[in-house]
Amino acid sequence: MARWAPGASDRLQRAAMELFAEHGFEATTVAGIAERAGVTERTFFRYFADKREVLFAGEQHLEAVFVSAIAGAPADAPLTDLLVAALDAGGAALQDMRGREFARARNEIIGANEQLQERELLKLAKLSHSVASALVERGIADVPARLAGDLVVSVFSTAFARWVAADETRDLVELQRQGLTAINTLVRTETG
Amino acid sequence: MARWAPGASDRLQRAAMELFAEHGFEATTVAGIAERAGVTERTFFRYFADKREVLFAGEQHLEAVFVSAIAGAPADAPLTDLLVAALDAGGAALQDMRGREFARARNEIIGANEQLQERELLKLAKLSHSVASALVERGIADVPARLAGDLVVSVFSTAFARWVAADETRDLVELQRQGLTAINTLVRTETG
Repeated sequence: MARWAPGASDRLQRAAMELFAEHGFEATTVAGIAERAGVTERTFFRYFADKREVLFAGEQHLEAVFVSAIAGAPADAPLTDLLVAALDAGGAALQDMRGREFARARNEIIGANEQLQERELLKLAKLSHSVASALVERGIADVPARLAGDLVVSVFSTAFARWVAADETRDLVELQRQGLTAINTLVRTETG
Repeated sequence: MARWAPGASDRLQRAAMELFAEHGFEATTVAGIAERAGVTERTFFRYFADKREVLFAGEQHLEAVFVSAIAGAPADAPLTDLLVAALDAGGAALQDMRGREFARARNEIIGANEQLQERELLKLAKLSHSVASALVERGIADVPARLAGDLVVSVFSTAFARWVAADETRDLVELQRQGLTAINTLVRTETG
């Protein structure tokens, strides 16, 4: 990877990802990350609370994208359209933020560490709550809003897992659309 | 609460719940739990790895109930019937295990501690994986199986949150059935 990335934040993130991949997450220190990025530890802490947060930078932005898509949809949009809008916007934003190669590297690091997996689960739970709250703001009742929040996160994370798979070429938004269709089929049988 | 519970395990669980409620989870020690239960610390560790595990005892049993319901369903059962069977069995088992009052007390303790919430999320993620694996065993493809695993957990945990609410009288199985119907409505609109 090129080392001349424009800002210190990008350089620190890149350095951290290299070191996590080379030595594992546990063995990597903030001092080591700062050194490889050519900045001081003080500079590191200006951007990230700790080394774990390097992997979770951008999550608030992503959450805001999901929420804005719901808040900004036409007033008469049916509930399912809100979910599609949120997923399309969130999926596109994630693809733009870092791209598939970064997501793959990040996924491997998180998969190797139980604490990081718990942090990831917490992030997804928060995303579900935020989506549910955005739906409640639009007049959706509490229980369907909660279920819809979980559904959005489930479709997102299942599509994400496919998207970062070694052999996968379809884009995230397309995979999410297929996931929604799959759920439709799944529960449609019930009263069919 | 009565102090003459039949086994040391039940006595320890009861003592721990009392102390968590009185002093908070953080301030409670294994020594304190053992003392109130009238046993040695050594006895405590025969039943639980640490104080946190007192709150998560029985989760493997619960997971097994969900999985067995799927594995044991008739060979020609459609996918949705498998989900209903898993939820009905799991919901009934949870109600029988400890009852609503215990679940309410446990819920308050977990709600007050972020680490416990992460542990709870991990438990639910494992449950989703186990349900998905049980579905894959029955020939369901990977993506719908994962989505179905998440859906079961979402319906279960959303119904659970209602079930432990102060004013709620409906039983867990009924609340889960209503959740499934809500999801049906939610995604049915999509192609409606």
